Amino acid sequence: MSMHRHVGPGSMSEMDGAGEHAGRALAIERRLISRLLRAIGFGDLRIVLWDGQEAAPGEPGGRTVCFRNRRAMYRLLMNPSIGFGDGYSTGAIEVDGDLVAFIEHSYRGMNAARRRALPRLMAAFARRAPHNTLEGSKQHIHSHYDLGNAFYKLWLDERMLYTCAYYPTEDATLEEAQLAKMDHVCRKLRLKPGMTVLETGCGWGGLALHMARHYGVTVKAYNISHEQIVHAQQQAMKLALHERAQFIEDDYRNAEGEFDRFVSVGMLEHVGVGNYPALGAVIDRTLKPDGVGLIHTIGRNYPRAMDKWIEKRIFPGACPPSLKQMMDILEPYELSVLDVENIRLHYARTCRDWLNRFENHRDRIAEMFDEHFVRAWRLYLCGSIAAFNTGSLQLFQMVFNRQPNNAIPLTRQYMYERAEAEYAQV
Amino acid sequence: MSMHRHVGPGSMSEMDGAGEHAGRALAIERRLISRLLRAIGFGDLRIVLWDGQEAAPGEPGGRTVCFRNRRAMYRLLMNPSIGFGDGYSTGAIEVDGDLVAFIEHSYRGMNAARRRALPRLMAAFARRAPHNTLEGSKQHIHSHYDLGNAFYKLWLDERMLYTCAYYPTEDATLEEAQLAKMDHVCRKLRLKPGMTVLETGCGWGGLALHMARHYGVTVKAYNISHEQIVHAQQQAMKLALHERAQFIEDDYRNAEGEFDRFVSVGMLEHVGVGNYPALGAVIDRTLKPDGVGLIHTIGRNYPRAMDKWIEKRIFPGACPPSLKQMMDILEPYELSVLDVENIRLHYARTCRDWLNRFENHRDRIAEMFDEHFVRAWRLYLCGSIAAFNTGSLQLFQMVFNRQPNNAIPLTRQYMYERAEAEYAQV
Repeated sequence: MSMHRHVGPGSMSEMDGAGEHAGRALAIERRLISRLLRAIGFGDLRIVLWDGQEAAPGEPGGRTVCFRNRRAMYRLLMNPSIGFGDGYSTGAIEVDGDLVAFIEHSYRGMNAARRRALPRLMAAFARRAPHNTLEGSKQHIHSHYDLGNAFYKLWLDERMLYTCAYYPTEDATLEEAQLAKMDHVCRKLRLKPGMTVLETGCGWGGLALHMARHYGVTVKAYNISHEQIVHAQQQAMKLALHERAQFIEDDYRNAEGEFDRFVSVGMLEHVGVGNYPALGAVIDRTLKPDGVGLIHTIGRNYPRAMDKWIEKRIFPGACPPSLKQMMDILEPYELSVLDVENIRLHYARTCRDWLNRFENHRDRIAEMFDEHFVRAWRLYLCGSIAAFNTGSLQLFQMVFNRQPNNAIPLTRQYMYERAEAEYAQV
Repeated sequence: MSMHRHVGPGSMSEMDGAGEHAGRALAIERRLISRLLRAIGFGDLRIVLWDGQEAAPGEPGGRTVCFRNRRAMYRLLMNPSIGFGDGYSTGAIEVDGDLVAFIEHSYRGMNAARRRALPRLMAAFARRAPHNTLEGSKQHIHSHYDLGNAFYKLWLDERMLYTCAYYPTEDATLEEAQLAKMDHVCRKLRLKPGMTVLETGCGWGGLALHMARHYGVTVKAYNISHEQIVHAQQQAMKLALHERAQFIEDDYRNAEGEFDRFVSVGMLEHVGVGNYPALGAVIDRTLKPDGVGLIHTIGRNYPRAMDKWIEKRIFPGACPPSLKQMMDILEPYELSVLDVENIRLHYARTCRDWLNRFENHRDRIAEMFDEHFVRAWRLYLCGSIAAFNTGSLQLFQMVFNRQPNNAIPLTRQYMYERAEAEYAQV
């Protein structure tokens, strides 16, 4: 795949209006940028500056990065993540070749550098973990998920699932993998007809509708994204499932009732570490004594803030937790972890499938938004592939029940042997 | 099963020499003990005191507990866990009917009481978690595991595995379940012929010998129990596996070399929370970049000290961790959790199988030790069944690899489909 053409200086008009920062690059500037990029593992990079000078000659076969103005370079030096994200988005920074491979390489370099400073970073993180209030959550979610269903329809699967898929085979399509993901979740939950399910953070309703339709359960699903809830409600009506799949535009903290099952797929990233005991309290309040729950979330190997650029431009307020942090949900309430599965490579593949579809519609998306948006979104998808491929991000599915509940199958074989025929395909 | 006969006061000679504490029970004493037992859920209990008086009349069909002297009652009041454990062991406290059911009932009652005080308890625990030095560990391990192989041979399976078995079917025997456990671990580790394995805390060598014999790997296994290491070395010679299974009488902290796999089954309970980063350092130092590790351990739903009696009389220095605590091993070293499975009910069954065999040899064991020992050990096994059945204890198997290692199977199906025929039964 080569979606990013090789570019030289001046080959693209600048969206950043940085003409005023042109002028000849100084020797000290050339050394500075070359040293930073070497420090994070880019020793072979050819670096081309706004005036056509090379800050580093690169090596044969190596790739090229171009800075179209001085400001982009300084912003990268001062704040690598946001500087690169914004610079790439505006076109002030250009990279030739495979963007995913480039980001993976930089993640590996940064991980190695970070590793040496890990204990200090973990302590620093604890002090600045984001805290999402009810109102803050609503604004954060609105800014990402209410970009318009038309936009997401262009590159998600037909059921509009915007979370990690599960590829049962190497050649599964995105559609098949999202279906398999839902069934994997349903099997782990051991759903039975007639059960009641609380879902928090239901997206466009894909999982709730699937559970109601194919597993005969009744779902109460919460989400604070207005556009998503409206879409989910329309789908429920269309499929005549509105009596068994109820979609509520409200915060998970306001969930009421008693349920056989709790499920949350792709919400925890937005909850904020400080709110984990509050989420635990919701689970503790609503889960029946013989209930089972599942949390599916992007995670970390250790506490770490979200990539700054992603957090600023794409997912405000987001923070994937480490397993240790996740336990703040369950440990105060005597909930037992039964099973944890890490399927991070499935998310790399999911994002790759999304990226391919996104690129197929890039012109249409540029019309809907603008070129800056296209580039920012491309960077986000490429960065996500890289993060999951390098292990900077994990994808945890965690199953739990209440401490005294002994209704636990002897082995986990039941997760792997259910026949496709068990539910009716409609 | 009714291994504990119904007893009335004075029906058994006292081993506690508590004759001096006899004399008529006061009304206040009767109220005190009855109130304590009611508070932890024993409202229906008939309580018989040393002078034959009833402190509580009980209910029809309810069970009876007898205190043979005043001291036993006061020790229970002051320190329920040690007081009951010691009192039962000496015969100063007697319970009719099923001891497991009795302990399960009290665990449930205490869990409910503890739950209300959970945050305070968790903070208190953090201050007094045991810390095991190299010398301290050696003494602790000696006191339990060097009781004599002849003793353990009486009631463990033929391979002398003294950790949770894995029952693939409801009717599996202990022998089958221990074999299945080893294969479950080996499959999770994805062993291949020619690989090198570091095992820390190898017991009598059962797993190391199984891996060397049936999976074609070379194992270096550490243990600080002299009697166990000698037995393991003898077995290796007998099976002509001494070139592929090396048993070293030394602390896990002194392990050296580079290995494809790390495995530790039933050692973490003895490591001590404060030493988890040291264990992580051993893993980080010895695991190859493409390595995979597995830790199998008794665990908790939240940080909590070991039952005081068990810690004092049976397992000095032991402390099963919560998942959150376990992450102190992995998070400082960029190790990724791939899989966690909780098989606590398998441990309840394992202990039940051990208890049955133990009771079959109780006379022989009383000759080897004494009556006090038989009762203490019975209580330990019954208490363990109860702890696993009530969810007071968990059994976690955790699989991990290094963050950048992408050699991860798409699904976990491979753990469940390996044919018996894949390795040669000898």
